[in-house]
Amino acid sequence: MPEALATAGHKVYGSMGQTKSRDAAVAEQMAAFSHEHRVELSALELDVQSQDSVDAAVAQVLAEAGRIDVLIHNAGHTVFGPAEAFKPEQYAELYDVNVLSTQRVNRAVLPHMRHQRQGLLVWISSSSSAGGTPPYLAPYFAAKAAMDSIAVQYARELSRWGIETSIIVPGAFTSGTNHFAHSGRPADAGRAAEYEEGPYQGFAEQVQKAFAAIVPPDADAGLVADAGRDRGSSQLRERQALGGQPGRGRATRPACKLASGASDRNGSALR
Amino acid sequence: MPEALATAGHKVYGSMGQTKSRDAAVAEQMAAFSHEHRVELSALELDVQSQDSVDAAVAQVLAEAGRIDVLIHNAGHTVFGPAEAFKPEQYAELYDVNVLSTQRVNRAVLPHMRHQRQGLLVWISSSSSAGGTPPYLAPYFAAKAAMDSIAVQYARELSRWGIETSIIVPGAFTSGTNHFAHSGRPADAGRAAEYEEGPYQGFAEQVQKAFAAIVPPDADAGLVADAGRDRGSSQLRERQALGGQPGRGRATRPACKLASGASDRNGSALR
Repeated sequence: MPEALATAGHKVYGSMGQTKSRDAAVAEQMAAFSHEHRVELSALELDVQSQDSVDAAVAQVLAEAGRIDVLIHNAGHTVFGPAEAFKPEQYAELYDVNVLSTQRVNRAVLPHMRHQRQGLLVWISSSSSAGGTPPYLAPYFAAKAAMDSIAVQYARELSRWGIETSIIVPGAFTSGTNHFAHSGRPADAGRAAEYEEGPYQGFAEQVQKAFAAIVPPDADAGLVADAGRDRGSSQLRERQALGGQPGRGRATRPACKLASGASDRNGSALR
Repeated sequence: MPEALATAGHKVYGSMGQTKSRDAAVAEQMAAFSHEHRVELSALELDVQSQDSVDAAVAQVLAEAGRIDVLIHNAGHTVFGPAEAFKPEQYAELYDVNVLSTQRVNRAVLPHMRHQRQGLLVWISSSSSAGGTPPYLAPYFAAKAAMDSIAVQYARELSRWGIETSIIVPGAFTSGTNHFAHSGRPADAGRAAEYEEGPYQGFAEQVQKAFAAIVPPDADAGLVADAGRDRGSSQLRERQALGGQPGRGRATRPACKLASGASDRNGSALR
């Protein structure tokens, strides 16, 4: 998504937890892309589980770019297994990564957006929040349902400040990555085994196969990036129109966009 | 709800955090009710935020009653204020009380229910999970949306064990208690004041008035208790029917029911 936004003419910061170690390869790809295509795309070190890290990263963006027009909530992690086999601490951890993360970034960015009386929040939600959820994904679906609910509340509480909201609900994507292999497992392996040895024998495999079967062969995660780009550009066009410069093409004043959790693009494909 | 269930002929444990201190009055009311109406209703000390406390309480019930047929998730707490003004720690705390609480009790009770291949989980959800949510309640609505999502996942993962699920979605109740006065407040009072002094001046009061206005004057929280009682009794009748003793009246073998968060009946009326 960051690449699509930068190519559309925006100044983009793609955040990740560790630009110099764990996520160094993604950061280098961004730098190479930026250089090759002559676009403004930078990797930003931002650990969504630390308020200090979030505050420092947002301060850096504001110091460099002077403003933040669009904030995209994209961080996420999933798990797979029987609901009962996950310990409460695992539910809490998933809530932290998927939900509290957005609150930390919001609390750093929103005072700025409220001050400028302009902005756009884009939330990458989950089709699970709209029903049709396969079993064995309780802690993840719970977190996404909560995030979706918070996004709706924020939409109403920010509109009078001139801040708009878009909630993107992508379908499931399985190509290019095995999201079940990358997902977290129940800490209580004994409890999970009771399901597998009991009436739910073979269920995990069934769920995974059925899930893969409903994803169209041409499902392209890039379409989600396009949706984010189009929503962002459209919002800018509206702003420009309000300012007396209507136009249907590329925004005349590129926006500064902060994509939180950019390195998760392929790491957590199930949204 | 515990009183309604006991009157219907079931052996009922109504749990609360501190039967001897904070919730002593509620515990004494239960004992008096049980004595006066010659029903089996006991207060049970169970802190839903402590796995040790939950495990001990469930072990006590199993030792005394020999079985648990029905588990009712009723614990809950709410907050009121702008989403942005709540610190991430407050969102985490609400998630713990409203959601992790159910996971702790499930992990204590479900091995027993799975072993007996019979049981019923009743979740007191929230109409907010079905849309139509007023603003300024983000941390609470997020938690209830998550709990509702988990309940749906559990329903599918428990049915083959013979365990059924009912999700009760009550409307809002304001009579008999001021739930806004009892609700938690944003830890960041300065941030909340910015909303009140900015474009959201008077909004909190507006929301509360509008909310009170949509609650019918004859709204009776007792109806929720009736729903829980009827669902529990109906499930028992079906069980009896399966055993060759069909009947439409009161269950011939009263069930042992554990109502988690029984003392919250009046303390947190917004479901």
